[in-house]
Amino acid sequence: MEQRKPVISVIGGSNTASAEAKQLAEEVGFLIARADAVLACGGLNGVMEAACKGAKKGGGLTIGILPGSDPREANPHVDVPIVTAISTARNAIVVRTADAIIAIDGSYGTLTEMAYAFDLGKKVFGLKSWDLEKVGVPKNLYIPVKSPREAVERAIEEAKRVRA
Amino acid sequence: MEQRKPVISVIGGSNTASAEAKQLAEEVGFLIARADAVLACGGLNGVMEAACKGAKKGGGLTIGILPGSDPREANPHVDVPIVTAISTARNAIVVRTADAIIAIDGSYGTLTEMAYAFDLGKKVFGLKSWDLEKVGVPKNLYIPVKSPREAVERAIEEAKRVRA
Amino acid sequence: MEQRKPVISVIGGSNTASAEAKQLAEEVGFLIARADAVLACGGLNGVMEAACKGAKKGGGLTIGILPGSDPREANPHVDVPIVTAISTARNAIVVRTADAIIAIDGSYGTLTEMAYAFDLGKKVFGLKSWDLEKVGVPKNLYIPVKSPREAVERAIEEAKRVRA
Amino acid sequence: MEQRKPVISVIGGSNTASAEAKQLAEEVGFLIARADAVLACGGLNGVMEAACKGAKKGGGLTIGILPGSDPREANPHVDVPIVTAISTARNAIVVRTADAIIAIDGSYGTLTEMAYAFDLGKKVFGLKSWDLEKVGVPKNLYIPVKSPREAVERAIEEAKRVRA
Repeated sequence: MEQRKPVISVIGGSNTASAEAKQLAEEVGFLIARADAVLACGGLNGVMEAACKGAKKGGGLTIGILPGSDPREANPHVDVPIVTAISTARNAIVVRTADAIIAIDGSYGTLTEMAYAFDLGKKVFGLKSWDLEKVGVPKNLYIPVKSPREAVERAIEEAKRVRA
Repeated sequence: MEQRKPVISVIGGSNTASAEAKQLAEEVGFLIARADAVLACGGLNGVMEAACKGAKKGGGLTIGILPGSDPREANPHVDVPIVTAISTARNAIVVRTADAIIAIDGSYGTLTEMAYAFDLGKKVFGLKSWDLEKVGVPKNLYIPVKSPREAVERAIEEAKRVRA
Repeated sequence: MEQRKPVISVIGGSNTASAEAKQLAEEVGFLIARADAVLACGGLNGVMEAACKGAKKGGGLTIGILPGSDPREANPHVDVPIVTAISTARNAIVVRTADAIIAIDGSYGTLTEMAYAFDLGKKVFGLKSWDLEKVGVPKNLYIPVKSPREAVERAIEEAKRVRA
Repeated sequence: MEQRKPVISVIGGSNTASAEAKQLAEEVGFLIARADAVLACGGLNGVMEAACKGAKKGGGLTIGILPGSDPREANPHVDVPIVTAISTARNAIVVRTADAIIAIDGSYGTLTEMAYAFDLGKKVFGLKSWDLEKVGVPKNLYIPVKSPREAVERAIEEAKRVRA
């Protein structure tokens, strides 16, 4: 078999996402697709929808790991809705499925995902997201980045590292 | 956006699967891919692995919804491992993610999935699997079929019906 | 520490449960409490509610493992609602939490629970429930019983066996 | 029926918990029991075990919502182990099951639980735990307290408020 493609999860705000966050997410999604990686996310709107939209523009594959029981709750840019019906407990699956995680903006749901990542020793690359250095999360787990390009390049590099 | 592809889940025995069951599963997987549908399954070996192998021969996309916490437990023909870490509670997700389900052979794990499908009013097309007519499951939920071709044609037809 | 009390899960129909099934369930619940065991169940109505009602009459402790996100969906005889919000995937937890399982009546949800039990090698004692001998489930896993008394005595005996 | 007892979940470090944290947890557990509330937790060691130990000294009931598949992984002071087998996705259940939450010390797993609480609008009373004011969590969600007594009194008050 050929090697499996890396999976990058994009996490972040849904209804509360700012226009800027969505623009960043769309560019992140586009670059993930161009790097030939699979985009996973929670499948809903806001940052998740923008990232999926970008990934489809980039010709990529998008997986939406939904909290509810209806595949139609997926945003229109999700190729494969995973219908968990386990509510926000699915946040753990969004993180576990990823080789590396990119956080953009985001509220408490995003914070559960970041903490799950740290608990598993997985790196999160953050764009305008929770400033967790202030509460002592070390720089080798939570890495603030400056641009979508930096986020995706470092996430892909990390995915290669964990797969090796 | 274009229409999402139908998702067909293939369920069945893992370690206990017979050579015949695996051959049927491989043909089922191949035909799912040729029908331009996505194959979902539990991601492990036996019927699941054979179905994924067939789907890749057919040029399709394979999703493995894993019970454990390590993507490397996926069989080598899974394109995207969904790492649930929720053990056999993931059986519910395998069923919920599908538009229609094909059961081949299978033991008690497969029986949980069939019962989840019936509970949701989803149809299961059975190839040499549990003979549930004997315990009163109606013919509009559990439909014994005679060949991989019949299984896939009817599952695709059902997927179109539920999406309409 | 003293020894933990045995946990017996009662599974069975909710809205569809017959008056007879509910009467059997109430007696089963009562006898579980009198045997100084803890009653676990899915926490909703029908067989689950009747079993909890009986257990409270017998002075016992009742645990309701709920599918939804609101503790108020528990029936009024549940002492401790476990709020899973994982929908019917919680059926696996109802089974895993039990030392032995008693099934009364029941539809497809109950069938998922019985199959989970068999998959784990756990015994199910059945009162007017699915007739799974017809599809080959062996007598050491699925044991039809004739009365609430027989169900509870054998379930308690089994709980002692698995704890030893 | 009589009113259900309040459920207070105690969250915090397991293997990493300090002696001081365990002492605080034991007192918290004791006071929860004396307030006639049920103690829920993740069922393992460290803060969880100390809280359960205190609750049993106080004559209370302890529920351990376990991540794994074996009830024997519960600490010896758990009365009823809930065997989820959904790994750390069970953190969401620990939070959802509670009327109010007390956090003591704790690492990333505890942070997932705190964030789940905030996402649900549930209050967390913190004893020597994450200093989340620094990252903007408002005082009506995360309430630092000074002693086990203050933690339990305020948690019980909150439980009464949400039940009203």
